[in-house]
Amino acid sequence: MSIPTIEWEGGVDGRVKLIDQTLLPGELKFIYCENKECMWEAIKMLRIRGAPAIGIAAAMGAFLGIRDVNADNFNDFFLRLQEVTTYLGTARPTAVNLFWALERMEHVAQAFHTEPIDTIKEFLFKEALEVLEEDRDSSKKIGEHGAALIPKGGTVMTYCNAGGLATGGYGTALAVIYAAHEQGRVDQVFACETRPLLQGARLTSWELMEAGLDVTLICDNMVAHVMVEKKIDAVVVGSDRIAASGDAANKIGSYGLSIIAREHKVPFYVAAPISTFDMKIAKGSDIPIEERSPDEVTYITGHRTAPEGVKVYNPAFDVIPAGNIRAIITEKGIIKEPNAKKVKKLVEG
Amino acid sequence: MSIPTIEWEGGVDGRVKLIDQTLLPGELKFIYCENKECMWEAIKMLRIRGAPAIGIAAAMGAFLGIRDVNADNFNDFFLRLQEVTTYLGTARPTAVNLFWALERMEHVAQAFHTEPIDTIKEFLFKEALEVLEEDRDSSKKIGEHGAALIPKGGTVMTYCNAGGLATGGYGTALAVIYAAHEQGRVDQVFACETRPLLQGARLTSWELMEAGLDVTLICDNMVAHVMVEKKIDAVVVGSDRIAASGDAANKIGSYGLSIIAREHKVPFYVAAPISTFDMKIAKGSDIPIEERSPDEVTYITGHRTAPEGVKVYNPAFDVIPAGNIRAIITEKGIIKEPNAKKVKKLVEG
Repeated sequence: MSIPTIEWEGGVDGRVKLIDQTLLPGELKFIYCENKECMWEAIKMLRIRGAPAIGIAAAMGAFLGIRDVNADNFNDFFLRLQEVTTYLGTARPTAVNLFWALERMEHVAQAFHTEPIDTIKEFLFKEALEVLEEDRDSSKKIGEHGAALIPKGGTVMTYCNAGGLATGGYGTALAVIYAAHEQGRVDQVFACETRPLLQGARLTSWELMEAGLDVTLICDNMVAHVMVEKKIDAVVVGSDRIAASGDAANKIGSYGLSIIAREHKVPFYVAAPISTFDMKIAKGSDIPIEERSPDEVTYITGHRTAPEGVKVYNPAFDVIPAGNIRAIITEKGIIKEPNAKKVKKLVEG
Repeated sequence: MSIPTIEWEGGVDGRVKLIDQTLLPGELKFIYCENKECMWEAIKMLRIRGAPAIGIAAAMGAFLGIRDVNADNFNDFFLRLQEVTTYLGTARPTAVNLFWALERMEHVAQAFHTEPIDTIKEFLFKEALEVLEEDRDSSKKIGEHGAALIPKGGTVMTYCNAGGLATGGYGTALAVIYAAHEQGRVDQVFACETRPLLQGARLTSWELMEAGLDVTLICDNMVAHVMVEKKIDAVVVGSDRIAASGDAANKIGSYGLSIIAREHKVPFYVAAPISTFDMKIAKGSDIPIEERSPDEVTYITGHRTAPEGVKVYNPAFDVIPAGNIRAIITEKGIIKEPNAKKVKKLVEG
């Protein structure tokens, strides 16, 4: 990504600058956030989305939320910080990176609880920027690790947007594709449009075209036919939360795609930073699945496409069982044929 | 369907009245066709769609095309009829019912070649109405045969629109659901929206709601998750062409849905009239698959949803292998676990 998805402008008194992804690809518009409400709204309304980018937004949002807080002592300050993190946590319940980043901010505050409040604020500011820097690093490493799995001249399928727009760097799934492309390994990418919010059509195809890749857009229901008609060498997707078992929650449709890939013997890869693992969650069926507004399904670009009053079921995520995943690609290395033992070894090792 | 999808108004000098399905569910508007060009456009632009309805439209269109033809002898007349059928055949290359209906009109002309031209025209008129009548009959019988396969209180999933809007009667897949509902066997229906043209969202959910069924709309990529989260007792779809092997072409996405149903041990049924079988086609991979305009994928309700210039692959159909089909439901009876031998026995027996 030549244009950063999210960045901090200025010093401690500065602000967050982020791309309003709901307007892509028609319009490239930036939002500037100076308070937690603006960040909450941006996360909730998917102006910023993608697990790692949400983590960055949450960390920066937490700092914005306590920047102007006056507190007499650490306990008061920490209670105020917890109010902020609780508030920001309500924006997207499935995204573990959100909670991971918010907890990280709390831990920093606790670690420096003997320092003056202003000093703690400075540490929190540095930590938020560090979350962004680390994400850029891990994005690069995920790309390097994953590229080796793509055969030379390969055709790759991806789903939703796990690209630069989803992270502070090059993405997760798309970091693999970018790195493989630089090595001459990727000839063609099939991008699934990803209903209901069309992140694949709007964001992934835009981002890949900007980067000069040969991308073909398809509807989500075409994947099985494409696997019969075109040679697909790999499917690479991101993840929003990975259980200790290796089961991975990702954008709704990923589970079905993994079944169809297995049927056609196409290797299915999940690319995600270590922060996506939630070791407190034993298995995929324990991951809470966010249900979103029916309007996302019944309105497209503001126009109603279904009868008034129709019932809608709109889960935002599903769970790819570890057994359908050929490998999980992280910045720390690759977990082939993931299971609880291998996950524990890489994540905690 | 209380409102007929297609009907003939008046006598020999009358016209075709059909619902413009591209405007549903927002607007219920009728089109009146008095010539073959109007019918061709209606078929091509999906104002009328669904295999059986296309057959009816084609038969009526063939009559409209030769109604005013003056010919000195049968040979001249028949050549003119063939010009009309060739022309109408270009509107939708995958729909076998289109060709089946056009051939049927040609056979009628040939059978009465010793009669005066005006008499032949009368027979062709009667034949076009007969195609409609037979379809209404077969729709009813498909419903009766299929309903027995649905467990009491069942939840059924359907795809695209194989309903009253797709036929002259109650539909094929939806005829099964309507009949089962009348018998108290269907509690709930999940309708897949069916990208790119959203026949499920626009037509099926509208039609089922009009008929008083409890219908829930989902995106196509949600089917696997729904099969995990909700108890789905059966998937019922229509078909546009069935090969002698029992492989069935249907709306793009049907193949993937059949894989996902098999994975979850959900029986997958194809409901179609005998006219859908194309015994000249040995197996599914020989069925020609229509590729449609990229604009269908990149524009939704007239609004662009993908970057300008993006490549698009837009196949309109895929093929459900016979091995994924629990049964094919026809007006002549049911073919359980279809194969070439069983298909031949029912279709030609």
